[in-house]
Amino acid sequence: MNALSQNKIKQIRCLQQKKCRDEHDLFVVEGEKMVAEVLMTASEHVEFCVSTADFYSEYAKGVEWYQCDEETLKRCSSLKTPNKVIAVVRKMAFPDTRTSFLLALDEVQDPGNMGTIMRLADWFGVKKIICSRTTVDVYNPKVIQASMGAFLRVQVEYTDLKPYFQKTQLPVFGALLEGENIYKTTVQPEGILLMGNEGNGISEELRSFISHPVSIPKRGGAESLNVSIATGILLSEFFRNA
Amino acid sequence: MNALSQNKIKQIRCLQQKKCRDEHDLFVVEGEKMVAEVLMTASEHVEFCVSTADFYSEYAKGVEWYQCDEETLKRCSSLKTPNKVIAVVRKMAFPDTRTSFLLALDEVQDPGNMGTIMRLADWFGVKKIICSRTTVDVYNPKVIQASMGAFLRVQVEYTDLKPYFQKTQLPVFGALLEGENIYKTTVQPEGILLMGNEGNGISEELRSFISHPVSIPKRGGAESLNVSIATGILLSEFFRNA
Repeated sequence: MNALSQNKIKQIRCLQQKKCRDEHDLFVVEGEKMVAEVLMTASEHVEFCVSTADFYSEYAKGVEWYQCDEETLKRCSSLKTPNKVIAVVRKMAFPDTRTSFLLALDEVQDPGNMGTIMRLADWFGVKKIICSRTTVDVYNPKVIQASMGAFLRVQVEYTDLKPYFQKTQLPVFGALLEGENIYKTTVQPEGILLMGNEGNGISEELRSFISHPVSIPKRGGAESLNVSIATGILLSEFFRNA
Repeated sequence: MNALSQNKIKQIRCLQQKKCRDEHDLFVVEGEKMVAEVLMTASEHVEFCVSTADFYSEYAKGVEWYQCDEETLKRCSSLKTPNKVIAVVRKMAFPDTRTSFLLALDEVQDPGNMGTIMRLADWFGVKKIICSRTTVDVYNPKVIQASMGAFLRVQVEYTDLKPYFQKTQLPVFGALLEGENIYKTTVQPEGILLMGNEGNGISEELRSFISHPVSIPKRGGAESLNVSIATGILLSEFFRNA
């Protein structure tokens, strides 16, 4: 193991910014469990790792490795409670999987929601998520953290959703408060499930592309559901009979 | 409006700590929307409010009100992005609603999860949540924030779950990875749905009380689901035919 230089610290900290991630095609993965998973399944993408002394993975062989004290790791970390290990990872290109069911996100802003939605997609076996360019960056450290490794398995693509929907042959299910009761709609995992922004839902511009507006009936006093929760409940409906 | 004294600032900041909240029976609500809701539905519980000049609610009449600049409000706030208004609110006693369906939480730790679960309960009309004493405090500012006002409608009670389960006559549904496929189980909103800790699930001690272990079948690569997401999907199953 080598000592961590000031330059490397700068590099890691810089990767908290999207601009820097885009420029270098790198991102940061934190935490023993997730770094171990990256080393196990994609070590060829790992540029280097930094850890306090006590991290060990049998898959770390051949990986450039630096050691530092807790204080320094804390300086590198974007998390409030930093982990014992940080990996700097090269962005992965996914082979474009053709799939008959995918998720579309229109301006989801909260990194926690985005990561949780990726984890959900990963759970249900949804292979691809397409996002408006205004959706939070998949390589944001908080997204990576909340995804619990889903970034290794779920393809996330940023695009202009309007032309995408203009071209698609797939039915578009859109989560709208005034949509049809999802419990009374028979749905199969075929098509696109479109979810909207935390505050404003699906943008006006995209609503016209929704062929099947759906909603989760409300029984109590809450005004709305969190977008990741609504995505979970709707995905569950798509897959419950699949 | 009066100017905000140093003492009041101290009092608000102190309420970020559970010990202080318990001692004074007070908690803090932040944000225009939620403070407006508290003023509208429970203004008699509002001790005082603090805002920058531009907050107005027609329900604020008769409420002790202080004004301060953004910098000071930021000092009072527990949030990264502070809001324009903070209310200090007296804890509310709920009449003990008898209900045939309730949620039980065993050591849920993350305030965001706790608040989201309360919001979910509120959406589905679940009136009561019982929590192990090790579950995060319902009056934690981040719980209140994530609950989106559910704390006004959902009763949350802390108790020793073991004796509670020993006494109850209700069936206990427990979320376990090895439980029965929830999609193949006919469930009605009658009984207790028990959810466990983020990392460890339901504690050994309580597992024996589960009469109906249930699970959400996994189809993809994720190892687990977030506890609030799992709660959402399971609640949806309980209420989809109700």
